[in-house]
Amino acid sequence: MTLSPYPVVKLKPKADARAIRHGAPWVFSDELVLDRRTRALEPGTIAVLADGERQEMALVAITPASRITCRILDRDPAARIDAEWLRRRIATAMAMREHLYDAPFYRLVHAEADGLPGMVIDRFGDTAVVQPNAAWADRLMPEITAVLQEMGIANIVRNGSGRTRSLEGLEEFIRVEAGAVEGPVPVPMNGATYMADLLGGQKTGLFYDQRPNHAFAARLGRGGSVLDVFSHVGGFALAALAQGATEALAVDGSAPALELAEQGARESGLADRFTTRKGDAFDEMTALAEEGRKFDLVVCDPPAFAPGKKSLEAGLRAYERVARLAAGLVAPGGYLVLCSCSHAADLARFRQASTRGIGRGGRLGQLIHTGFAGPDHPMHPQLAESGYLKALFYRLDG
Amino acid sequence: MTLSPYPVVKLKPKADARAIRHGAPWVFSDELVLDRRTRALEPGTIAVLADGERQEMALVAITPASRITCRILDRDPAARIDAEWLRRRIATAMAMREHLYDAPFYRLVHAEADGLPGMVIDRFGDTAVVQPNAAWADRLMPEITAVLQEMGIANIVRNGSGRTRSLEGLEEFIRVEAGAVEGPVPVPMNGATYMADLLGGQKTGLFYDQRPNHAFAARLGRGGSVLDVFSHVGGFALAALAQGATEALAVDGSAPALELAEQGARESGLADRFTTRKGDAFDEMTALAEEGRKFDLVVCDPPAFAPGKKSLEAGLRAYERVARLAAGLVAPGGYLVLCSCSHAADLARFRQASTRGIGRGGRLGQLIHTGFAGPDHPMHPQLAESGYLKALFYRLDG
Repeated sequence: MTLSPYPVVKLKPKADARAIRHGAPWVFSDELVLDRRTRALEPGTIAVLADGERQEMALVAITPASRITCRILDRDPAARIDAEWLRRRIATAMAMREHLYDAPFYRLVHAEADGLPGMVIDRFGDTAVVQPNAAWADRLMPEITAVLQEMGIANIVRNGSGRTRSLEGLEEFIRVEAGAVEGPVPVPMNGATYMADLLGGQKTGLFYDQRPNHAFAARLGRGGSVLDVFSHVGGFALAALAQGATEALAVDGSAPALELAEQGARESGLADRFTTRKGDAFDEMTALAEEGRKFDLVVCDPPAFAPGKKSLEAGLRAYERVARLAAGLVAPGGYLVLCSCSHAADLARFRQASTRGIGRGGRLGQLIHTGFAGPDHPMHPQLAESGYLKALFYRLDG
Repeated sequence: MTLSPYPVVKLKPKADARAIRHGAPWVFSDELVLDRRTRALEPGTIAVLADGERQEMALVAITPASRITCRILDRDPAARIDAEWLRRRIATAMAMREHLYDAPFYRLVHAEADGLPGMVIDRFGDTAVVQPNAAWADRLMPEITAVLQEMGIANIVRNGSGRTRSLEGLEEFIRVEAGAVEGPVPVPMNGATYMADLLGGQKTGLFYDQRPNHAFAARLGRGGSVLDVFSHVGGFALAALAQGATEALAVDGSAPALELAEQGARESGLADRFTTRKGDAFDEMTALAEEGRKFDLVVCDPPAFAPGKKSLEAGLRAYERVARLAAGLVAPGGYLVLCSCSHAADLARFRQASTRGIGRGGRLGQLIHTGFAGPDHPMHPQLAESGYLKALFYRLDG
């Protein structure tokens, strides 16, 4: 018998309750008793999870139709998921970011690893962009908005454009929930200023995850020329210029992204050393090779070519092709940075495809650094295999 | 017919010549025709490698009795391995370090990845410690010494204490080859000064590989207390103090290492916030727990518990035990850094053992960063699986 205001959902007797007790963050559909009552629960309902012996184990958010059926919210089944609970979790996440960063520009909440499963919050000074990618978080948007405003973040954008939302039965939209956001927001990182269009969605937003890789690449780029392919708003190019690169060329297929990059270069006082080229990355790299161009540092940060298992082989071939084309543009003794944000392509496979591409481009390389997403993108240790972002830093032969 | 001054050794017809053409750095004993003439070659002989069709492929160094029988030295079979060749390779390696580091303190040559297989050179200002761990390099020590001196490195130490030397049939010893080395050498890193005893061998030398991990940990340790277990000469503790930790305790089993750590603390002006405890790390962690001590940052950088496949299971249990004991000493919301320098324990296995240990210590954690050896320890891309150094940075629950 429970005094909880929440419904109870039960693990199958054969489910691995021990894994959940040891910290597993999810319960899959085949581990749960999905009786009619449970299937009828609204997506995002808070429930008490009980084991096969009816022992209460945790509070969960349940989305009956999703393969990830339950997300553990609190290992105390007596907890209450309310504004106070959200405040504690967000404050814990913020304390770590404030300890690590000098300015309030970071990913504030990174889902499971921050104890807020499926919820992502990026902070841009006094503006936050919330991605409630799980139904429970979507339902709690009013409370989340209120808590963030109490913490001094005045403007709240709700970004409902994540591809996981449809799995949770959620609509897609972007809107300002509170306060006001007008025009692109300036974001200081690694000595440069980036312009982030927080209402334009993925194509023109800003990703904090590459910050340490921008920094490492900028160190390599000092005193030389830089090519930033798939540049988006100029992440690698502007950081390198700010750290002493002599010139940088950004290539991207998106005109709005390149416009923001140029605006960022102007804001950073780097516009005189910065140029852009709009076009398909493969075409532009081929054209640059035909023009005989070489750069002391080439960076390629393409979109996810292998987001899922089905696209893995084709994705790896695309990464190899990127590596081959890019290697040909690196000056003797110069540096090549190859990135992947594909979940399905693990580090070993991505490295193999990249190394093979470099070899097919007629070059030999040494691998001097491997980077991942920054510490404002912590990983749940039991989901660490899925660390999606990889950056490989090569020095090529002279 | 060849005009080479070097003997020719041949791949077996069925050996994978393509892998070697694509950059593989080694030829194993079962890939090579080991006829009587070849078996009679002195360890470290320079030879021309030919494929099954007698096509010359590369220059190699051969050690007939070793499983790694040939190490590729130059993909041009017409090259000559002499002082000029060494000078070019070492200069290429130095150019990258000079680009990356503000002061001449770094691993100057990191073996295969720098095109000098089996050869390791650490630079400490005007002093270099050379580890000629392959027979070819051991034979060329006079040339290596001369080249380094020409490059302005006056004092050359030959460290023949590596465990791989016996596989190459080499004696073990440490001696000054040229110039003079008197007493420990001060080494600036991450704002602290470390004292390195270059003649005392592994127990009291200095490892550059952890430099970026020292730096990241120091960022976590700002404003708090630090426990550095298996501290050696105080790598993590002194960097953290230099970056603003309030106090640090170093634990190590070696009195000479702790003496150097204390000397480094004095040189760095940090001695008033630094204490040491000599003893077995497991015993000392148990004792600190009994004393009820907590630290805002705990770092454990043990010796290789799983250097080879045979010791893997026992090694993983030891890493789990370190994690369990250390987790209990971390203050609520504090940080735990766990390192492994075991080749056999790959990243996934080490992370699993560490995460399990943290759980058995009654804590939950988020993984905020994964670090490897610094860029002065580049990897040959085809040997990258063997990246031995891993550092896991956790934040533990409040």
